[in-house]
Amino acid sequence: MSTLPRRLVAEALGTSLLLATVVGSGIMGVTLAQGNDAVALLANAAATAAVLYVLIAVLGPISGAHFNPAVTLAMRMQRQIGTRETLCYVCVQCIAAVLGVLLAHAMFEQGLVQPGVRARTGAAQWLSEAVATFGLVLTILVGVRVRAAAIPALVAGWILAAYWFTASTSFANPAVTMARAITRSFAGIRPQDVPAFVAAQCVGAMLAVWVAAWLLADRPARPEDEPPGS
Amino acid sequence: MSTLPRRLVAEALGTSLLLATVVGSGIMGVTLAQGNDAVALLANAAATAAVLYVLIAVLGPISGAHFNPAVTLAMRMQRQIGTRETLCYVCVQCIAAVLGVLLAHAMFEQGLVQPGVRARTGAAQWLSEAVATFGLVLTILVGVRVRAAAIPALVAGWILAAYWFTASTSFANPAVTMARAITRSFAGIRPQDVPAFVAAQCVGAMLAVWVAAWLLADRPARPEDEPPGS
Amino acid sequence: MSTLPRRLVAEALGTSLLLATVVGSGIMGVTLAQGNDAVALLANAAATAAVLYVLIAVLGPISGAHFNPAVTLAMRMQRQIGTRETLCYVCVQCIAAVLGVLLAHAMFEQGLVQPGVRARTGAAQWLSEAVATFGLVLTILVGVRVRAAAIPALVAGWILAAYWFTASTSFANPAVTMARAITRSFAGIRPQDVPAFVAAQCVGAMLAVWVAAWLLADRPARPEDEPPGS
Amino acid sequence: MSTLPRRLVAEALGTSLLLATVVGSGIMGVTLAQGNDAVALLANAAATAAVLYVLIAVLGPISGAHFNPAVTLAMRMQRQIGTRETLCYVCVQCIAAVLGVLLAHAMFEQGLVQPGVRARTGAAQWLSEAVATFGLVLTILVGVRVRAAAIPALVAGWILAAYWFTASTSFANPAVTMARAITRSFAGIRPQDVPAFVAAQCVGAMLAVWVAAWLLADRPARPEDEPPGS
Repeated sequence: MSTLPRRLVAEALGTSLLLATVVGSGIMGVTLAQGNDAVALLANAAATAAVLYVLIAVLGPISGAHFNPAVTLAMRMQRQIGTRETLCYVCVQCIAAVLGVLLAHAMFEQGLVQPGVRARTGAAQWLSEAVATFGLVLTILVGVRVRAAAIPALVAGWILAAYWFTASTSFANPAVTMARAITRSFAGIRPQDVPAFVAAQCVGAMLAVWVAAWLLADRPARPEDEPPGS
Repeated sequence: MSTLPRRLVAEALGTSLLLATVVGSGIMGVTLAQGNDAVALLANAAATAAVLYVLIAVLGPISGAHFNPAVTLAMRMQRQIGTRETLCYVCVQCIAAVLGVLLAHAMFEQGLVQPGVRARTGAAQWLSEAVATFGLVLTILVGVRVRAAAIPALVAGWILAAYWFTASTSFANPAVTMARAITRSFAGIRPQDVPAFVAAQCVGAMLAVWVAAWLLADRPARPEDEPPGS
Repeated sequence: MSTLPRRLVAEALGTSLLLATVVGSGIMGVTLAQGNDAVALLANAAATAAVLYVLIAVLGPISGAHFNPAVTLAMRMQRQIGTRETLCYVCVQCIAAVLGVLLAHAMFEQGLVQPGVRARTGAAQWLSEAVATFGLVLTILVGVRVRAAAIPALVAGWILAAYWFTASTSFANPAVTMARAITRSFAGIRPQDVPAFVAAQCVGAMLAVWVAAWLLADRPARPEDEPPGS
Repeated sequence: MSTLPRRLVAEALGTSLLLATVVGSGIMGVTLAQGNDAVALLANAAATAAVLYVLIAVLGPISGAHFNPAVTLAMRMQRQIGTRETLCYVCVQCIAAVLGVLLAHAMFEQGLVQPGVRARTGAAQWLSEAVATFGLVLTILVGVRVRAAAIPALVAGWILAAYWFTASTSFANPAVTMARAITRSFAGIRPQDVPAFVAAQCVGAMLAVWVAAWLLADRPARPEDEPPGS
């Protein structure tokens, strides 16, 4: 791990580029797909998974590559980072996520801030977000212990699948959810739908922390076959 | 390996999330693909392969990550697990597979139990299932001996290919087959077509056990270049 | 490496399953893609790359996983296998390739032998085959020396790209070319176009043997950072 | 690393095959996709990412596998190669890129030189190119230090994402940009739009050199967990 300023810059870079990819590839997909939203979502999912793999592999050794307040809170619950760092991480993630959406809009010559109009609400959507975030946090917490070097590919793989098997296309990230409220594009969400999404994500993340701790309770504390943080 | 309760919970989690992905991504694909079933199947196959990679990598060190009675039986035939564990595994896999389908239906606001209506029968379908399961079990049994760390990617790769090159889209798993009889969606199967599918899968699996044993007969019993169970 | 009978069975299994995938996923793709051949080719390329990755990883430690007379001849030119083995490999590959096509036809309830009707001829097609085979053999010969453990992914990656960037969709394999002359499906070729394809493939393979030898002339004979045959 | 002539031949081979893939898969995609440009771009991006993975893995140990004057200049700024080598690399990359486009045109029976007609200009396009090249060079410079063995997959992953999330589909390479000015196909660019693209790419690359140096300033000079050049 690097010094705190370097870690925060790494979190900012990663979160911004993640959001630029989610929103930018959604705009590109819808523009080219002639109304076939399945093709647009294939492109959106492939681009998001690819950039997650790259950003986590490259920036993970610097900041841990959370890019996600739910992950940062899970790490805090496991006492892997301190309270002050947690606050800094979450603030930086939220600001950087918004900047990433602005960057995508600028690259596609769109209005920089566009209040989201896509309704995403109801119990089925919230269940989807809880499942998506549960799986994401479980993958990270167990993965770090049993196969740390594969974390970039594991997170990318989970998100690729969750884009398709959840009804919400898997936001699974409070900073991402807030930032996607300022785009009217394919990837957007109505601002009023954000709080319930974030709440569902937190429920999923906390459940994952509890399940991961139980599943790993009879294993040694350090990874056995692979180096940590790699 | 962990204690038996932890192993069974890991099998249950993995099998449920696998089925939620198979059924959920099928529903999403058909909903978005404007009738182009090839695009829906691309999404279905990509999501299934991605989640298999993740679930096997993360849960493999805990339970072996079978998620499949055919695999559990093959392991039993190789005396890698005991009779009591085999029974527990198979029961948990079947129950969890059903729960996974219910979860997918709940996420997409559909009736929880929908008897499958998709006819999948005839010698060509059964041949497809035997080939798909033969290849899956052969990949696992030989892969564990020659390249154990790659098992998650190998299983994902085989299933991705088999979705496309078999006429049945490769169920290759008795628990998955039974559970897919309670969905009317893209991924479903008529209940009356289940027994022959399961029989064909068992034939394929047993053939693979026999071929793998012969192919590996002149190799040392333990993997040479990679750690087991990783 | 295993005993010769085991090696030949591994070559037969791998080549058959490769052809079953090439032809079967082509049939499935065209059946579902509503005339959008780009979607069918995406599925065809993804399935072929995935199965190549699996078959080479699993069977490579047993037989070397050539599945391709052009590769076997390149290995012979490098004196890595003997003359008798070369003849056995090539015969087995050709027979197994035909059996793989029959298997695909059987799984899709089609006539087992269907003379190919797709014209694939002319200088541009031959150039495509020479380029595709050159790249494939170069990837294998240099890859084995600099990154042996990645050979399954490297071959899969090359073929995925070459399906799209060559005008012939990259057969790059004499056994595959002959066997694809007995299918009328998407992946077929007219019997009379086979000899020129095979000749172009041999030219590409021999050029690759020569270029690889020159490129590697100042490197030590054994791989440096990765174990051979893994 | 090999002798300079071998390194230059490796750069030439890699750059030519990269351009043949970019242009060839674009032609194939548009030909087959029935006007659905999203499907064509999916194929184009998948083929480009796959070939980048292969070429960097295979040729990286010989020449470093830059294939890109922006990468070569970044390496020069980091004093990893000398001035003379830099000049040789850049000249060879530019010539080989043009030859790669000619090869693609020849394989698809098209006029060998076709002045590009696709307008790609304006601040949004230039911003896209700066972002794409910034991310590419950052990925390489940080990746080499923290996860050197994954560089082929990291570069492939970045380019796959950047094809979709930038408005310019991510050229991110001055030699590629110049060479794509001689194709009228999907992947082309008007000759008069080239200089601004190259300038934007250089701005992005230099910014990445500066950010990477700052991010890595508190880390040891050599990679910790993985061998260099592998």
